[in-house]
This record gives sequence, C-alpha cells and structure tokens, in this order.
Amino acid sequence: MSSAQSIQFQVAANEGSARTGLLHTRRGPIETPVFMPVGTAGSVKGIRFEELQAPDLDARIILGNTYHLWLRPGIDVIKACGGLHKFIGWDRAMLTDSGGFQVWSLTEIRKVTEEGTEFRSHIDGALKFLSPEISMEVQSVLDAEIAMAFDECPAGQIEHDAARQSMELTLRWAKRSKEAHVAQAVSLRNAMEPMQADSLHYNQALFGIIQGGAHVDLRRESLQRTVEIGFDGYALGGLSVGEEKPVMLDIIEDIAPLMPSDKARYLMGVGTPEDLIESVARGVDMFDCVLPTRNGRNGQAFTSRGKVNIKNARFATDTRPLDEQCSCAVCRRHARAFIRHLYLAGEMLASILLTHHNLAFFLDTMRRVRQAIRSGQFAKFRREFTEQLSSGLE
Amino acid sequence: MSSAQSIQFQVAANEGSARTGLLHTRRGPIETPVFMPVGTAGSVKGIRFEELQAPDLDARIILGNTYHLWLRPGIDVIKACGGLHKFIGWDRAMLTDSGGFQVWSLTEIRKVTEEGTEFRSHIDGALKFLSPEISMEVQSVLDAEIAMAFDECPAGQIEHDAARQSMELTLRWAKRSKEAHVAQAVSLRNAMEPMQADSLHYNQALFGIIQGGAHVDLRRESLQRTVEIGFDGYALGGLSVGEEKPVMLDIIEDIAPLMPSDKARYLMGVGTPEDLIESVARGVDMFDCVLPTRNGRNGQAFTSRGKVNIKNARFATDTRPLDEQCSCAVCRRHARAFIRHLYLAGEMLASILLTHHNLAFFLDTMRRVRQAIRSGQFAKFRREFTEQLSSGLE
Repeated sequence: MSSAQSIQFQVAANEGSARTGLLHTRRGPIETPVFMPVGTAGSVKGIRFEELQAPDLDARIILGNTYHLWLRPGIDVIKACGGLHKFIGWDRAMLTDSGGFQVWSLTEIRKVTEEGTEFRSHIDGALKFLSPEISMEVQSVLDAEIAMAFDECPAGQIEHDAARQSMELTLRWAKRSKEAHVAQAVSLRNAMEPMQADSLHYNQALFGIIQGGAHVDLRRESLQRTVEIGFDGYALGGLSVGEEKPVMLDIIEDIAPLMPSDKARYLMGVGTPEDLIESVARGVDMFDCVLPTRNGRNGQAFTSRGKVNIKNARFATDTRPLDEQCSCAVCRRHARAFIRHLYLAGEMLASILLTHHNLAFFLDTMRRVRQAIRSGQFAKFRREFTEQLSSGLE
Repeated sequence: MSSAQSIQFQVAANEGSARTGLLHTRRGPIETPVFMPVGTAGSVKGIRFEELQAPDLDARIILGNTYHLWLRPGIDVIKACGGLHKFIGWDRAMLTDSGGFQVWSLTEIRKVTEEGTEFRSHIDGALKFLSPEISMEVQSVLDAEIAMAFDECPAGQIEHDAARQSMELTLRWAKRSKEAHVAQAVSLRNAMEPMQADSLHYNQALFGIIQGGAHVDLRRESLQRTVEIGFDGYALGGLSVGEEKPVMLDIIEDIAPLMPSDKARYLMGVGTPEDLIESVARGVDMFDCVLPTRNGRNGQAFTSRGKVNIKNARFATDTRPLDEQCSCAVCRRHARAFIRHLYLAGEMLASILLTHHNLAFFLDTMRRVRQAIRSGQFAKFRREFTEQLSSGLE
C-alpha cells in the first residue's frame, strides 16, 4: 500500500510563485498558506486548545515534537491513552517532526552513524538512540496526520563537502523512513478488522525533507532525489539555523518553485512575519515556528507595526490594545498598560495574553495572505504589509 | 453622606444558622454564600477573565489586594487607566482588602504606631507606610464595590493582653477608616457634575473587620464596638492564621450568629472546601482564599472525593477527567494522564488547567450550597458532601 491517498493538496489560485490551496487531511481540510503553532510537549505553550480553536485564532493544524514526546511521557503512555490526539484532547490535524532537529539543537550528540544518532537526553542525560525506523515507529504511535522523514540537520554554514555527506545520509535515511512507514501502514491495516480498515489510524501522510545547507546545487540534487523516493509532501529543512537571511531567501526562491507543484511545500521552523510573507511569495505553503509563543513569554508582542517589548516604560499608562488593528480576544479586552504590569509583576497571565495575541497575529496574517492571493492582490498586500511592519508602533 | 445605600443584602432563605441571599452591588447582584477568587496583583493567577465569566465558573466577584497593587503598578498608573476595573478589564464586582494582612504576612514590619504601620516592601525593600487614611485613599482609587477597613492582624496564638491591645488599635483604625471613607465619598460627590452624581464612582461600600484572636470575649467585644461604628458589612479577620482548626470553627460558631443578620458576613482568607461548608453552616456568607489557585499551580486538584496530587504515578495512563462528577471545561476535555504529563514537563498549561478546575470546584460547590439551603436540604448536603470528600479519589 502506498500512502499516496493519505493526503491531497489542491492549488486554488496562484499569483506569481505564491499560491493558495487546500490540504485535505483525514481530520478536515486546511487552507494554505498555513501557519502551524508549535505544541512541543503536547501543549502549545501558554494557550488552551479551546482558544486555539476559537474564531480569532482558528488554528487548523498544530505541530508536535517527536523528540520531546518520545522522551516524556514516552510512547507507552501515549499509546495507552489512544494516540496523541486523544492524549492531549485535540481533534484537529497535527504534524509531528522526526526528532532530528531537536537531537541536533538540544542534545549533546555522541555519535552519528549510518544506523542513526546516539545522544544524551536533555532531560536526564540518559543515553538514547534515534534512527529512521525508531522515529517512524514513534510517529506512528503519535498518529499525527503528517509524519516527517528522519533527517540530519547540519549547521547553517556547513562547507560543501560536509554538506554533501550530510545530504547523502539524509537521503539514505529518507529511503529507510519511507520503507518503515509503508511497512507500518501495511502491518496496521492487516491487523485491523475489515470494519476498521477505513478508520483514521493507518492513514498517515509522510513528508520528505530537502537538505543541502546553503549550497544551491546540493539543494537541487536533494530535491530531485527526495522526489524520486516519493513522499506525500516536501519540506525545506535546515534553514533559519544560523545562515544569513538573504541566503535563506535565495535558497527558497531557487528551490521552492522546483518542488512538485501538486504537493504541499513546508518550510520548517520559519519564521518572522516578514519571513512568512517573503516565503509565500516564493511558493511555500506551510510554516511552523516557536516565535509567537516563545517571544510572547519573553514579553514581546508582534503587531502590524512591528515588534514591541511590552516592558517599555512608554506603555505604563497606555490604555490602547497591543495592536489597534487587531481584533483578537486580548486586544478586544486588555490594555498595554495592564499587560506591561502583569509582565513586570511576573504574572503568568502576561505570557498567556501575549502568546494569544501573537498567535492571532500570525494566523490572521496568513488568512489575509490567502485572501490576497485568491483576489490577485498579493503583490499589493506584500508591499503594504511590509511597509507597515517597519513603520513602528505608535 | 452615609455609604449605607452603596450595597444591600437580603436573606432569601435560612436553614439553621446557614443562609442564602442576595448582595446587591452597583455592578449587579451576587448570590450568597459566595466564594471570591483572589486576584492578587490584578490577575487571578493562571486564569483569564473570559474563563472566570464562563458558565462553568461564573465568578460574580473577585478580590484585589490593595497592598500588591499599591506597590506595583502603583495608584498613579491605575488612576490614569480609570480605576482597577478598567485597568484589568473586569466589569463584574470586586472587593479590595485593606493591605493590613499582606503587611503582616509578607513584609518585615518595622514599626506599628498609633498612626499606622511602617514596613519594607517585599518587592524592593523600600520603606513604606500604610495607615487607615492611606488604605482608604488607595482603595478609593482602585474603586472596588467593597473596600475593607484597615486593621491589624495579630498572630493566631496571641495572648489575651496583646490580643486586646491589637483589637483596641484595630477599633481606632476602624473609626478612622470609616471617617476617611465618608470624607472621600463626600468630596468625590462634590467634585462631580450633577449628572455624574448617580454614577458608580462615589458609591463604594466599606466593611468593618472583627478581630480578637482566639479569645471569644474579645471577639464579642470587637463585634459589638465595630457594629457601633457602623459599616456596610462585617468580616471576621485574623482566622486561619495559625490557630487550630476547631478553635477557628468555635469562634465562627460563637460570633457569626451575633453579626448583624441584615448585613453580609465575610470570613477572610478561608479556606478548604470543608471550611467553607462548616462556616456556611455557622452563618457565613462570603469567602476568599488562594487555595484553589495556589494549590493548582503546585499540582494539587480539589475533587468531590478530596484532594489529589496530579504527580501521583497512578495517574500516568489514567484517561478519566480530574473529577468524574465535574462538568467544567477542563474535565470535559482533558485526562488526568495529560495533566500529570504537563505538570511533570513543567508546562504552564498544567497550572492553567488545574487552576481552572479547582476554581470550578469551589464555585460549583457554593452553587450547590445555595441550592441546598433554598430547598431546605443543606443539612443533608453537608453530611453527604463531607462524607464523599473523605472517601478518596478512585
């Protein structure tokens, strides 16, 4: 059985390289371009699922981190609770990453071998081992709509030779990821009663990941050979990991339009509102990033006029909402002065409110992007949005 | 002008000493007995105002701490933002304490004089001075529906002589609190245009506080002389501060029925679900306590079968809600296993969910108490509720 039926992507409108479409998953359709809030350890930090589903946010898909969930609470617990959706109480779509990026960014890696990666857990220092097969097994238990192939994520400034070596390893791991994923699907299907065979469980999509560092020739080769293996969608990995921003945008501009146009294109771990707009303009459909949540917890608000730090003394008695153009629940109710006070007083509610507003801003921006592409106004939107972002909050 | 019109209390039904009634405030009626969530620094920790107002909690009045808000952000900020309600974005009723208890519990007190209390701020160590007049001025700016007289809170085991001295000081401060409050109301009223004179602002109620430690004779005297000064409601202060629980209940049993029956009776800073039920049985109408919020942040859930610590290993794969008899938003959506995982992973959402459920349990318990008294079933309710509380969560 191929997993080709597990997800479908249809482009509804194009404007230049930018496109808007529908990603059909077993848990409902998702309009693209889409931003996926990051639910690291089964929680999008600082926000309740009810709020993620409320009309002002309306997140259709969130990301779960395989690495974090595998280490804690562990797959036995999640399996016993019926998979990640049931465990956390979220019935919309999810995507799980492969764990490769967290191993690279969070742990002391002991050894990368052909077989996989040996590392020490960032929680308790325990020696752990992750491979394509183990990642696929864990992601099968998590049972998100979309799983990611297990890759090696090299540093942003990696030299050509090392980048090729890493890319070749990622390609071999991609093949093993695909094989393990197909075998799991067959085995799951065979284990099911005929009546269950149409159920959600076996029907998980798998995305391949394009690597190659900042080297366009390697990126093109990685793309071609990843497509040859064949996945339900394709991701650009290893960007926004230390390279200069123009380098990132150049690679996206070169590679994204070459990615299969009938499959979703996912730019992993990116980025700022500017990054999202510029990447959409280059043909990207999906994004995830911790910026709105992490920066919210650190007192930073994203607004239509750029980022502001709520600690700033000029907000001490400012009764205006965070963003006067925003209609999220936080901006409808609370003043800058109050959120500043909460932040300075160390109140958890500061993080909660800033996280909510920031996610609302990211998700609403994507809604406006989709609308602009549909109506052929994306070039104008991009120009005005970018101009306003740099104008500064009054 | 007397402040006697600022609040009205009507008893709707009695059962023994227990009673249910309506407290009419300028921001709507409040059914009693009532539990007031504590909004220390302008935020009920870990929960959004939208959720406090949602049907499963439906908090009609919350408490703000004068001491905390006075130190940070300070009354200038709150004044500039139009009072505490506007500053925090809460348009239901509020009560502010006088600051006396926090000075006693949080600071290094430098000197208690006839004039007031000199202490060092717990935030920055700055030398501060609080008196009846200053407390009334701060509470006037905060502009809650109910302000509290400035009192001295002695330790729970204070000897008779010292308790009398403290009580006499509290009585003199009560008189000064009343005078300052009346003068403020007159001055506010005079400063207003005729059209504004019916507005909310001048119309703040003031409650007196009965002290006297664990000495019933002093408590009775404190009650009688506080009532002679004349307040809009009366509170029992200085309980649950280190004395034995039977001592507290004995004092409540002796004093509460002697408190004016046509005014609300408020037991400050109490308590556990058992305390609430036992105090209602002795004639108390109002409560506030940090237990549901603070213990929630520390991983403790209050349930109809008693308290449980969510860390407990037996919840690792328990897919049942925190309390199978609870219909709050958390219990409708999330499993014990998930909340346990969040708590162990240090996720903020653990505190958020436990706080929400605990407040729902306290507020729902009070709803059931009111219903039981109205229908003459409180004795039965009290027996069954207490029995179930001690049965232990399965």
